[in-house]
Amino acid sequence: MAISKEAVPPLPLTRASVLAAHETISPLIHRTPIFTSSSLSASLPGKNTLYFMAENLQKGGAFKFRGASFSLSCLSPGELERGVCTHSSGNHAGALALAAKERGVKCYVVMPNNSAQPKIDAVRAYGASITFCEPNATARARTLASVQAETGATFVPPYDAVNTILGQGTALLELLEQAPEPLAAVIAPVGGGGLLAGTALAAEGTGVCVFGAEPAGADDCAQGLREGKRREDVQADTIADGLRTPVGVLNFPIIQEKVKAVITVTDEEIIDAMRLMWERLKLVVEPSGATAFAAVRSKQFQEMGIKGPIGIIISGGNIDLSKPLPWVQQE
Amino acid sequence: MAISKEAVPPLPLTRASVLAAHETISPLIHRTPIFTSSSLSASLPGKNTLYFMAENLQKGGAFKFRGASFSLSCLSPGELERGVCTHSSGNHAGALALAAKERGVKCYVVMPNNSAQPKIDAVRAYGASITFCEPNATARARTLASVQAETGATFVPPYDAVNTILGQGTALLELLEQAPEPLAAVIAPVGGGGLLAGTALAAEGTGVCVFGAEPAGADDCAQGLREGKRREDVQADTIADGLRTPVGVLNFPIIQEKVKAVITVTDEEIIDAMRLMWERLKLVVEPSGATAFAAVRSKQFQEMGIKGPIGIIISGGNIDLSKPLPWVQQE
Repeated sequence: MAISKEAVPPLPLTRASVLAAHETISPLIHRTPIFTSSSLSASLPGKNTLYFMAENLQKGGAFKFRGASFSLSCLSPGELERGVCTHSSGNHAGALALAAKERGVKCYVVMPNNSAQPKIDAVRAYGASITFCEPNATARARTLASVQAETGATFVPPYDAVNTILGQGTALLELLEQAPEPLAAVIAPVGGGGLLAGTALAAEGTGVCVFGAEPAGADDCAQGLREGKRREDVQADTIADGLRTPVGVLNFPIIQEKVKAVITVTDEEIIDAMRLMWERLKLVVEPSGATAFAAVRSKQFQEMGIKGPIGIIISGGNIDLSKPLPWVQQE
Repeated sequence: MAISKEAVPPLPLTRASVLAAHETISPLIHRTPIFTSSSLSASLPGKNTLYFMAENLQKGGAFKFRGASFSLSCLSPGELERGVCTHSSGNHAGALALAAKERGVKCYVVMPNNSAQPKIDAVRAYGASITFCEPNATARARTLASVQAETGATFVPPYDAVNTILGQGTALLELLEQAPEPLAAVIAPVGGGGLLAGTALAAEGTGVCVFGAEPAGADDCAQGLREGKRREDVQADTIADGLRTPVGVLNFPIIQEKVKAVITVTDEEIIDAMRLMWERLKLVVEPSGATAFAAVRSKQFQEMGIKGPIGIIISGGNIDLSKPLPWVQQE
């Protein structure tokens, strides 16, 4: 276990830092496999070979475990002793709870009282202490502050933090290592922007062109890029529950500088892509995890005429399987 | 592509022949990964480490591609020229059609006219010529005979044939190669018995104890073992559609001699196991593919007190996703 003697000062936001983060967390994370499907590749007008990075097979079922692991690795023994805390209704809560559990570190999670039961169950199964709050930003922040005051736990943010971004960027390193040929492009979904900003940093100097994929119902990042200014709020109306957050303060300028384009897709396109991935890749993928493939299938992306292999990051697979499948519901 | 100059006389039913089959088909098949889950392993009373062999990620979505590939490899150029045929409503039809397509060999499939639409679509997408027949054994055999008479195509049986059995046995070789520690036991589902008999041959001399898993609603193999005599028919009432066939003439004595026990499980146990695999492994597994894990979870298996790691073969992942999930339907 890589625990620093003292809290580590944040690394610069560069590819070298992503490489350093990867060295630190490699023994702690799953090295997730990549998948190809000749039928999915052949189904696209561009016929690009597609390499899917299966972060739904990461510990905790999502890439979030990478950022949580690296964030914990940068804390001092004293900080680890007091524990960590966060607020989240989704995959970050589970990832932090699991990463903390594996190190024997206490974890406190503030969750909105309307969180999905399977997410609550997962956080609880990983041994975290849960405090419920009203489902709004003010209540979350206030409840988290009181948990911190009481416990002295260190806040580990879900996306708007250097170590989180660097940790998430490590997924691309493994994708590039495993792909049998150089990639022309890679695409990752964007909610808060931890994964996309990290991916963009990890791609620096590799010649891989980076794209983002965002639900049309929560397209604050795409709007911000058009307007040249980060939007502070997001009107989140999408099935992709992992992508409903506004893009972060640290994340936006990285995306603005290094990401070629953020493609928006409708929920219908996300559901179609998700179904294809379940059928052809035989992988359980959550809607957020299907968003990047949905974007690759879109007219907007196909018209860009990218030549060569494309990496697609499947961000997660945590879906409530007690509910009807979204395409079955539709029919 | 390994095509013999003349049709190859059948190899003996031994481990050495499984190794030879593996050498032949290795360039043609996917080397499927193995999966572990600490939560699934810890959930069992015996706490055995479980290694899941993901044959749902095999080409065509099931282990059947192995046997089909090896069967084709043993045909003469003249036979390949005339094409191959089979009757099947399930994964074998798709596997043979795909294996034939990849070699540019014609494929004729007789399917009962009540076959599931996705299975029909898959066989058609792989370019096979389909002849429909009434859904009974006599009509299948008669229709196949007339297709053979017309085309001269060679019949490739789904399970009751030496080359099919040897091909299916290759899955265990890859499981043993990939597992980071020696296995105490391995378990595979049994319908016609191609996979289970092949697995038993592949395990010879390795010290790995082989178990079979069968749905209680189609338990002709378990009954035959109790009675010391193969049952020729099966009353097939189970959700595990891949396991509804009676165990084959060649297959039964191999199982009788080399398999420690065949564990039967109810459809409810199969559905529970399947849901756990979707949730924890994030893999799309069909009911037949969850049957071996269901058996490992059963009281009967747990009371045997196997010590050490257990390999579980996930036989396939072809499920009609336009239908409600079986546990959702139940609720």
